[in-house]
Amino acid sequence: MRISKLVGKRVKETPSSASLKSHILLLRAGFIKQVGTGIFSLLPPAQRVSQKIQNIIREEMNNIGGQEVLFPVVMPRELWDMSGRYSSIKDEMVRFKDRTGHDMLLGMTHEEAAVHMMLNTATSHEDLPCMIYQIQTKFRDEARPRGGLIRVREFTMKDAYSFHTNQEDLEDYYKKVFDAYVRIYKRIGFKNFISVKSDTGMMGGKVADEFMAVTEAGEDKLVICPHCNYSSNMEVANSIKDESDHNVAGKMEEVFTGNAKTIEEVAAFLEIDAKHSCKAVCYQTLDEKLVVAFIRGDCDINETKLSKLCQSELYPVDVEERGLFAGNIGCVNINLPEGSFVFFDKTLEGLENFVTGANKKDFHIKNVSISRDVKPEKFEDFSNVREGDLCCECHSPLTLNRGIEIGNIFQLGTKYTKTMGMKINMPDGTTKEPIMGCYGIGVGRSLASIIEEKADEKGMVWPITIAPWQVYLCPIRIEDENVSTITEELYKTMQTEGIEVLFDDRNVSAGVKLTDSELMGIPVRVVISPKTIANGQAEITIRSSGEKTFIEISELINEIKAIIKFEKEEIEKDI
Amino acid sequence: MRISKLVGKRVKETPSSASLKSHILLLRAGFIKQVGTGIFSLLPPAQRVSQKIQNIIREEMNNIGGQEVLFPVVMPRELWDMSGRYSSIKDEMVRFKDRTGHDMLLGMTHEEAAVHMMLNTATSHEDLPCMIYQIQTKFRDEARPRGGLIRVREFTMKDAYSFHTNQEDLEDYYKKVFDAYVRIYKRIGFKNFISVKSDTGMMGGKVADEFMAVTEAGEDKLVICPHCNYSSNMEVANSIKDESDHNVAGKMEEVFTGNAKTIEEVAAFLEIDAKHSCKAVCYQTLDEKLVVAFIRGDCDINETKLSKLCQSELYPVDVEERGLFAGNIGCVNINLPEGSFVFFDKTLEGLENFVTGANKKDFHIKNVSISRDVKPEKFEDFSNVREGDLCCECHSPLTLNRGIEIGNIFQLGTKYTKTMGMKINMPDGTTKEPIMGCYGIGVGRSLASIIEEKADEKGMVWPITIAPWQVYLCPIRIEDENVSTITEELYKTMQTEGIEVLFDDRNVSAGVKLTDSELMGIPVRVVISPKTIANGQAEITIRSSGEKTFIEISELINEIKAIIKFEKEEIEKDI
Repeated sequence: MRISKLVGKRVKETPSSASLKSHILLLRAGFIKQVGTGIFSLLPPAQRVSQKIQNIIREEMNNIGGQEVLFPVVMPRELWDMSGRYSSIKDEMVRFKDRTGHDMLLGMTHEEAAVHMMLNTATSHEDLPCMIYQIQTKFRDEARPRGGLIRVREFTMKDAYSFHTNQEDLEDYYKKVFDAYVRIYKRIGFKNFISVKSDTGMMGGKVADEFMAVTEAGEDKLVICPHCNYSSNMEVANSIKDESDHNVAGKMEEVFTGNAKTIEEVAAFLEIDAKHSCKAVCYQTLDEKLVVAFIRGDCDINETKLSKLCQSELYPVDVEERGLFAGNIGCVNINLPEGSFVFFDKTLEGLENFVTGANKKDFHIKNVSISRDVKPEKFEDFSNVREGDLCCECHSPLTLNRGIEIGNIFQLGTKYTKTMGMKINMPDGTTKEPIMGCYGIGVGRSLASIIEEKADEKGMVWPITIAPWQVYLCPIRIEDENVSTITEELYKTMQTEGIEVLFDDRNVSAGVKLTDSELMGIPVRVVISPKTIANGQAEITIRSSGEKTFIEISELINEIKAIIKFEKEEIEKDI
Repeated sequence: MRISKLVGKRVKETPSSASLKSHILLLRAGFIKQVGTGIFSLLPPAQRVSQKIQNIIREEMNNIGGQEVLFPVVMPRELWDMSGRYSSIKDEMVRFKDRTGHDMLLGMTHEEAAVHMMLNTATSHEDLPCMIYQIQTKFRDEARPRGGLIRVREFTMKDAYSFHTNQEDLEDYYKKVFDAYVRIYKRIGFKNFISVKSDTGMMGGKVADEFMAVTEAGEDKLVICPHCNYSSNMEVANSIKDESDHNVAGKMEEVFTGNAKTIEEVAAFLEIDAKHSCKAVCYQTLDEKLVVAFIRGDCDINETKLSKLCQSELYPVDVEERGLFAGNIGCVNINLPEGSFVFFDKTLEGLENFVTGANKKDFHIKNVSISRDVKPEKFEDFSNVREGDLCCECHSPLTLNRGIEIGNIFQLGTKYTKTMGMKINMPDGTTKEPIMGCYGIGVGRSLASIIEEKADEKGMVWPITIAPWQVYLCPIRIEDENVSTITEELYKTMQTEGIEVLFDDRNVSAGVKLTDSELMGIPVRVVISPKTIANGQAEITIRSSGEKTFIEISELINEIKAIIKFEKEEIEKDI
């Protein structure tokens, strides 16, 4: 490709609309253009990277027996009524009426379409296990698109669906997909990614893992144990909190605490550590049931965990309207409206000698014993993990990190096959609903995340495996006939030799060219100038290391091939 | 691929929902599954064919300097307001509101998105010409989806857009695209396709060509001159009608024609040939203006041509309400409401001695001379071409054929660059709106059309270049250990040797296997049975010719490679 003909302009200015590194660089390097909120066009370099990522995904999916198919973007309501998701998914799903008034929707995931394909297609246990996948455009009407390709509304995604006759078989295959995902991310060039246990969300099912690019730009909170490699999404992470008082409590005693309402105020007023208290946090469910969650005073509630316990999203509530005293709600003898939820977090288990609200204006109670005075039926885990909490596996201190979700895999169970009536004839003459797994990778998000991981102050740094071009051929003073002849010749040779080359054939300053080559992050830059020619040489610069070497022009093609080979091997060596 | 694991079942029964050959075969062979009206999922074999077609398209687009990009499926209204198409395109375009109430639409074509990408990207005449293309999913809410993949609502399409500083440059490039299209269809394997001049429709612009697979299954009417190869879509086709009476007319004379109202009735009543008459056909425009179109009595009106003259779609009208006498409308002294359209077809030019309505109940006029008694300002062409009409180019008789549109190319002009404000700095310091071309190919429709062209009574017949697999490896009596060992071995070798093979590893009858191989249309079938093994041989059958040969098993791989090479060369030889 000649850069003079390449569609897309490189610009110096940081676009005002962007704050994330990958977003800024994708705009500045002429890789993407915004068409609407969370909606982008890909210019040729980005489309090239995207296709290389897709091909890596495709190869790894095929390697584990995946069969590529294509599901529709637009689907009729009936299909999603079968699974119940036409109504259970809210504003994220786009719905419209077609010209005949029929209810239609845009697919944001394709479990229903996958089961539809398999209905009457796989009918015998001999047809399973099998896995189908597609790489297709999806639209999810995100409330808060952000960060360029990191959180968009329209995106290209690989989604895969596997079908099994029993849980063991699913688990075996799930492991294979897990390993294929690790290979995919390594081949894309990720160094810093992990898998974390995660919430299954609107997919249903029980076991799920997310693959996370660990980066400050991420919006997901991750809990990682540097000692034993335990890693988890905050939404399902566990930890051991530091010990509190487990000495047998004295006699309960009401104390006046007046205007001290927040746990910090109460602790200060009573001169205790917040961990010797129990606080109440209140919500209401979608159908307006009151939710009261008790947790140790120094800990925070994880709303996703709590929301799962209530099987409802959580909304703010006015507790006074429900007959409670804001700031004085406590776990001893609380009197709640019928149908309310009360939950006790695990941080309260075994707790003695703590303070809690007295359920009475301006009063708290001291010396409470959870087992003696409250006797909860059970303790649930809905606390947030904190930096320094101890790992449940190895008791080492945990660290908190941020990550971008670049893929997820789910053990779905029979939610979709059951509701959609898919049955398999078993060897013993019975029928059975197959058990499903589903597996997604966002292509554009992977593309942006690798920029987040690799880019430096000069621009992008593409791994050789997914670089839009492998070589940036950069003549300096192209008006010099020698320079022009030699580089035109090299350009042709490289193409013949199968080297992917971007040829900077513009008559612009060396500065502009070198800056553009760095901004675009092409792995190998070859500079030919009157000076290098005088020595019969070319200058090679490796984008990732900045390493510069001079090489005889006659050796150049072989040297470039060797570099490309080496860079590929470096990426693939631990796969 | 082992057929036992292939997702998709082959069935004998003709599905009741299908009448078109390609539709029936795609369903019977397990290639597609209907998800909604005009909406299909592609199963693995169809997806394989689709990708091969896409790759051929991609290579040919890249060969003429095309740069692959990706535009969004979902676009905001604003983009389409700029071109005016948000309101000018009717029910075919899906519109919806996103979660914030913003008007959005599904792209059915991407002229607006292409110009949006080029705005501030191509700014200088040096940036042009350039061509960008994508292969992407589109949704068009067709009123009458039909025929499986022939006329769908959701489809995969390659759409390309080129930008030029002058008309000559566009025309040069247009020819290049035209030639690339010819290569694409030839490489796909089409033998019977033509290009025809066509209407530009909602795209705007003046010159357009359609590529048509000529087949009885087509819904487009084509006019072809077997002598000089003139070919045209009926909507823009011209012809010379056989001569009528051009002798100078006698004196006009009113005659009573009573209940004879249609031109056939009047001609019979007056004992004349219908070609010696002038009939009137009436419509109303979208804004209810009356349209009266006069044409020679034996000819038919082409509504697309007429509609273009009126710049409006045409609707039925009650002529009596407009003060006319149905069945007696004539071109002499007709009195029409203000603002009405009157058109005279070219078939009336020079006509003498003809009959027309008297604009008076139950009467017609004889001996009319168009030049003496009517004096139209001009004659337009809005007649349909008839089988046997003469070619305007070479005066040979024309034939009427049917075709499926498998691609189209347009010289768009500046419609989009002008409305969207795209300007290019010219060498002389002025600015200019670039001139555009746009170029589409339907991937799924090409896939279905090639089935229409090639299939026989046994099933599909895939050209080697796009076949889902090249070889169908078919052991007969796989329970025989020899058969099983040899075919398993061959299956492995073929894969290692890069031969795309579908291995029928099922323990079913020879009949089922042979029928399936024919239904799926795999180009080369290799049968290994105890009988062939006894002779150390395998049986090879070429799907397209039915030709059978026996070959030593030791020679098999080389022979298959030779056949594949030969089949490819046969397809590519005249490209």
